[in-house]
Amino acid sequence: MASTPNRQAPKGKQSERIKIQDVARLAQVSLSTVSGVLNDKENVRPETRQRVLEVIAQLGYTPNLFASNLARRRTKIIGIIVSDLMNPFFAEIARALDNQARQHGYETFLTSTNFHPEQQCAAVRQMLSLRVAGIAMMTSENDPEAFFILKASGTPTVYLDNDHSAQHIGTVRVDKRHGMYLAVQHLLQLGHRQILLVKNSQQDAAVPPMHSHMERQIGFEEALREFNSRETDVHIIDEPGEPAAAGLRAVEMALKQQYHFTAVVAINDLVALGVLRGLQAAGKAIPQDVSVVGFDDTYLCRFLHPPLTSVATPREDLAKSVLQTLFAYIDGDDLLPEPMLAARIVVRESTAGPSKVALL
Amino acid sequence: MASTPNRQAPKGKQSERIKIQDVARLAQVSLSTVSGVLNDKENVRPETRQRVLEVIAQLGYTPNLFASNLARRRTKIIGIIVSDLMNPFFAEIARALDNQARQHGYETFLTSTNFHPEQQCAAVRQMLSLRVAGIAMMTSENDPEAFFILKASGTPTVYLDNDHSAQHIGTVRVDKRHGMYLAVQHLLQLGHRQILLVKNSQQDAAVPPMHSHMERQIGFEEALREFNSRETDVHIIDEPGEPAAAGLRAVEMALKQQYHFTAVVAINDLVALGVLRGLQAAGKAIPQDVSVVGFDDTYLCRFLHPPLTSVATPREDLAKSVLQTLFAYIDGDDLLPEPMLAARIVVRESTAGPSKVALL
Repeated sequence: MASTPNRQAPKGKQSERIKIQDVARLAQVSLSTVSGVLNDKENVRPETRQRVLEVIAQLGYTPNLFASNLARRRTKIIGIIVSDLMNPFFAEIARALDNQARQHGYETFLTSTNFHPEQQCAAVRQMLSLRVAGIAMMTSENDPEAFFILKASGTPTVYLDNDHSAQHIGTVRVDKRHGMYLAVQHLLQLGHRQILLVKNSQQDAAVPPMHSHMERQIGFEEALREFNSRETDVHIIDEPGEPAAAGLRAVEMALKQQYHFTAVVAINDLVALGVLRGLQAAGKAIPQDVSVVGFDDTYLCRFLHPPLTSVATPREDLAKSVLQTLFAYIDGDDLLPEPMLAARIVVRESTAGPSKVALL
Repeated sequence: MASTPNRQAPKGKQSERIKIQDVARLAQVSLSTVSGVLNDKENVRPETRQRVLEVIAQLGYTPNLFASNLARRRTKIIGIIVSDLMNPFFAEIARALDNQARQHGYETFLTSTNFHPEQQCAAVRQMLSLRVAGIAMMTSENDPEAFFILKASGTPTVYLDNDHSAQHIGTVRVDKRHGMYLAVQHLLQLGHRQILLVKNSQQDAAVPPMHSHMERQIGFEEALREFNSRETDVHIIDEPGEPAAAGLRAVEMALKQQYHFTAVVAINDLVALGVLRGLQAAGKAIPQDVSVVGFDDTYLCRFLHPPLTSVATPREDLAKSVLQTLFAYIDGDDLLPEPMLAARIVVRESTAGPSKVALL
């Protein structure tokens, strides 16, 4: 059973006992309002919707819609939700999940949120209506409402790096914090003291900063602190938009502002792609003038010029962990351990010691 | 109504009249065999399955399964099937389709065939069982059985560059032949006479060559013929496997074999990525030593070093055409025109005139 701190319902087979009337009474709304929330009608005020969803989660109420879906035969489909189809990191996760799910007799369907919380909710609703066997939520950003709906649905779900879990909702973690620590440590050990960090927050949706980006920033700061940050000089540029274009703009901006840096850490490989381009277009040689480190170790790294040093997050192991957890939930297990996968740095030709002549 | 040449059934509302018994009789099999084929049971011999599917297509028979699905409310989902999630060409099509479908109140689910015909069939069956409103079949390879199933299902479908159409199955074409013609013409006009063409057929599945690749080869040859091929020297390497790695291996092979070439045409941008890497790893400067042209004009081109000249196939227009056709079928139209979208060459910094000193 989910261990919600404020649980008000008796233990046991809740979903057989809790009725929509209980939800309506506790949330102090009408039955039709609860129904409106469950069916995503637009005439429910946001505060009311939020209250109803919270009561649903608190009571562990399973709506009839989902209950009847559960009773019907589930499909042999795993729904995969990612943030951005264009980022090879997500495409590689989706492919690994698809290959491995197929070996277990499952197929996968993929959809993308484009970093929009409302698209995450819509994707979840659609996948639930299609009676998917489970959902792999491989997104950078996570919407609380989508989590509530998943919790209420009882559908096995595995998140990537999420802070919340529930009876049938688990998380597989990648140690991105330590990954970023390793990237910065690598540069410091090479002798770099002037480092530019290029981030790529998606700010247009006014959502809180992405968990995975926060973790990376913490790792970045840990490495500097440990080394003694007074000796180091760090610039951070957070540029929203398409990652590669954002990386390019960030470098143009840094050069225009005459920032002093001998190395760049990019928040992911696509941002690094734009960073490389920006530096090379300005006549900088990599790594002689500037070293560049990416993050995710996507297939691109091997083929860039020069091949990109990057932090590897183990894609196949990640997919394996996600599916192991999902299949365990599908088989009826609950509250599984949350594996944490290690990151490591893959050194290629884009990093070297800083040249004696400082940049600019 | 579909205009099958060998039509043996009376005209009119066929799906109300043709029964499973008619299919069984004409295919000379039992009812349970027809049922086995429709439900993808494995105890039907391939030749028998083929015969049953042909009769189904010929009669325009709509199985009860699909008929009842049609009667039930369809989902507001467009299923997208692509060949390869890792290729930005497909990811960009999927994203354009998703963005545009969303504006019409539809969501999209994506799945990949990885160039395997059996995965195409499996994807089609799953999408039909989920009652998608329509299918965008954006694959390089096409499986005849998947086409038969789609034809029998009555589900609106739009293919990318397919030779077959039916009542609710259309095609949107991109003029890849002329696109490749433009790429070769560009190189010839720059003065190149020694050209290496790098292809990337996926041969492991023993399938016929991909339509889109054949078209490109024809365009390649047309440009040479028009120019007068006796003056030109062409090498072709067809390397299977992951596209970027295949491009890299092809270049390594060409250099090892001491092929003479001053320009490379890659069958797509990912292959070009590997070609660039192979040349640069061997110390060749692009475009001073060798010019490189890609195909598809994916987002990568702008960010490579040097930025890649490529043949642009209009992604947004393609998605628009595909959805226009799909929505028309969903609204009950049939036998729509098959649009042909123009390709054009986008010249960037990876192509220039050949240097006076021949390569190697």
